[in-house]
Amino acid sequence: QINTERLVASLLELGTHGALPGGGVNRLALTDADRAGRDWTVAQMRALGMQVEIDAIGNGIATYAGSEDLPPVMCGSHIDTVRTGGLYDGNLGVLAGLEVVRTLKDAGVRPRRPIAVAFFTNEEGSRFQPDMLGSLVYVGGLPLAEALAAPAVDGPLLGDELARIGYAGSAPVGQPVVDSYFELHIEQGPVLDQQGIQIGVVEGVQGIYWTRLVFTGKSNHAGTTPMALRADAGMAAMRTAAFAHQLAEQTGGRQLATVGSLELVPNLVNVIAAQARMTVDLRNTDAAALAQVRAQLHAFAAQCAQEHGVQLEAETLADFDPVAFDPALVDSVEQHARAAGCSTLRLPSGAGHDAQMLARVCPTAMIFVPSIDGLSHNVREYTPPADIGRGAQILLQVMLERANR
Amino acid sequence: QINTERLVASLLELGTHGALPGGGVNRLALTDADRAGRDWTVAQMRALGMQVEIDAIGNGIATYAGSEDLPPVMCGSHIDTVRTGGLYDGNLGVLAGLEVVRTLKDAGVRPRRPIAVAFFTNEEGSRFQPDMLGSLVYVGGLPLAEALAAPAVDGPLLGDELARIGYAGSAPVGQPVVDSYFELHIEQGPVLDQQGIQIGVVEGVQGIYWTRLVFTGKSNHAGTTPMALRADAGMAAMRTAAFAHQLAEQTGGRQLATVGSLELVPNLVNVIAAQARMTVDLRNTDAAALAQVRAQLHAFAAQCAQEHGVQLEAETLADFDPVAFDPALVDSVEQHARAAGCSTLRLPSGAGHDAQMLARVCPTAMIFVPSIDGLSHNVREYTPPADIGRGAQILLQVMLERANR
Ligand SMILES: NC(=O)NCCC(=O)O
Ligand SMILES: NC(=O)NCCC(=O)O
Repeated sequence: QINTERLVASLLELGTHGALPGGGVNRLALTDADRAGRDWTVAQMRALGMQVEIDAIGNGIATYAGSEDLPPVMCGSHIDTVRTGGLYDGNLGVLAGLEVVRTLKDAGVRPRRPIAVAFFTNEEGSRFQPDMLGSLVYVGGLPLAEALAAPAVDGPLLGDELARIGYAGSAPVGQPVVDSYFELHIEQGPVLDQQGIQIGVVEGVQGIYWTRLVFTGKSNHAGTTPMALRADAGMAAMRTAAFAHQLAEQTGGRQLATVGSLELVPNLVNVIAAQARMTVDLRNTDAAALAQVRAQLHAFAAQCAQEHGVQLEAETLADFDPVAFDPALVDSVEQHARAAGCSTLRLPSGAGHDAQMLARVCPTAMIFVPSIDGLSHNVREYTPPADIGRGAQILLQVMLERANR
Repeated sequence: QINTERLVASLLELGTHGALPGGGVNRLALTDADRAGRDWTVAQMRALGMQVEIDAIGNGIATYAGSEDLPPVMCGSHIDTVRTGGLYDGNLGVLAGLEVVRTLKDAGVRPRRPIAVAFFTNEEGSRFQPDMLGSLVYVGGLPLAEALAAPAVDGPLLGDELARIGYAGSAPVGQPVVDSYFELHIEQGPVLDQQGIQIGVVEGVQGIYWTRLVFTGKSNHAGTTPMALRADAGMAAMRTAAFAHQLAEQTGGRQLATVGSLELVPNLVNVIAAQARMTVDLRNTDAAALAQVRAQLHAFAAQCAQEHGVQLEAETLADFDPVAFDPALVDSVEQHARAAGCSTLRLPSGAGHDAQMLARVCPTAMIFVPSIDGLSHNVREYTPPADIGRGAQILLQVMLERANR
């Protein structure tokens, strides 16, 4: 039986690393705060007697030995956060895994297969792109060298930052041998909270496409340059952003579009912007629909750039197809939740997760618990202790069943 | 007779202070680079034997004595630049004034009235708002205390920066006694260059309205938050920007609209923006039309904010009515230009200028010379030596005529 209080206390303690003055956490990947969070987490793993390995992309994997030397049943998530994040996103999956091990250890239970608990590097994708980078490299979906060369939004390369914080480990990546993977996560959306459901049974993850559009025009004087003679990079970008939004609104809800980042150069009140750098995040559970919206976006951006007389460069930052989790494991999550008396709902994940990468190499499933008001990537992100305890208990049961199989 | 070579050499020399690696200048108001430019300019003034006063808002005014102790005939402009500016905007008006004095001195000419040459603080309005702040305070249009409390876009207060660079002078502001004011400036727009005209006879300055709109929504996850449940501050701002642009384009050219500055918080690819801070620059030669567009902008912004479920705060950063210069002085500029064999065109100024503030207290006029390709607020801003010489020569003649009156 999971100790909910102990688990919640560990979430609060991890949350002190990179804590923001007004609440919430800033633990962007591979910053000093991330290092502090990693150091604390590794110390917890060691205190449990687990064997800890850091791999070449900085993922940390701790193993609790099984009675036989078989591929482990793994769980995990990430401990990096967005710049203004909460205490639960990612952290819950890692610390619930440690609570599972703590519970087994306290009860003197040694399952047949090893239990592994992982934290993956740069899941958020806020500081380096793509998101889920650590788990993507772990499963061989992105060459290590390419990942190490990813530039941070604030300049330095991922490989240099990894070395700087002392997490360029020696364990190999790219060909993991894992029995199965489970991830407990907060929903980060409003569905469970609104419907009063306790456990979300996650069937898969929607498709994610991130692009960076760089419009380059000509800076000029805001008071003397006739509208018709401008090459206003900012306006081309903002009109494209409005179009993306409109596309999403027209679909009646299946398609999402977000322009979360836009920078103008030189960014002055009376100077027409010479350059606008912006990101667009498009998501859809339907791969074909996502591909169509993506094409429409790029067509509009190109036309808009031409109308404004500005150059356009587009770069793909993330491109992940929708993923379906393992039907047997998804059923197992649902059965254990129902047996425990929890209300359940099958749903897709709106957010990307490390689980979608692990699904490439082993049977995988996820468990969601509610996010109050659907808030996430927000310092006021919150999930009540009772939900946390329920989620961790289901995680314990599905993992134990699988590990003794 | 103006020495064009000497004047151009002085422009290049002033341009070394705050020079950017790829050409152009960054001498934002009251930065270290601005201090260096000021120090150099004051040294030039002193070397000419002029008496230099720094006033309480940091304006520098150098006087070449007349044969009688009368109110001076003044010329001037500014030496601050935008972040990616050129060598001519403002600098030309100040250095041409010094070249006028140098020419009179070399020729042993002592006019009846004194000749004053001024550089005014923070004309550009890039670092502190409003623009033309120094000349506005000089003529009593803005209380000194209010101006000193203006915050820089990078944080510090104007008064503190003025003290830091050693230009919080003791000469009084607010009640200047000036006979008349002339300003030579590059056009900064394309009209003279496109039509092959040598001298622009400036009839006045169009109206300028700057507002800062701050949209405050709620940061949330880009992948999990349904479009209908978002409070996307960035999208509300960008849609308002697109609307402002559309309003201007619909008028067929009289109305200008520029969104030069926009900042999103937290500015991350997968986080819906919690806040968007943006400026809008609206200009029109017609005061009533400008007032109408301004009202339409604010109405749209408010409605857009409501549709997106975000809060809106609006702040006025600059608000200057169109200004008409003194008809007799404008005629005098035109006559001297024609007598010198120059082609001329009467036109309004698209940019704001210190002259529009001086026009509140004395007869005022401006002389424009062409900007190649209409480029300004751009490191590639350029005006050929021959045009510079012609402009300075007309300045000399109109000032001398007025000073001997
Ligand atoms: N779970 C989560 O917030 N992942 C970050 C990647 C994404 O934007 O979906
Ligand atoms: N001349 C000039 O560039 N003034 C700056 C103020 C404005 O934006 O018009």
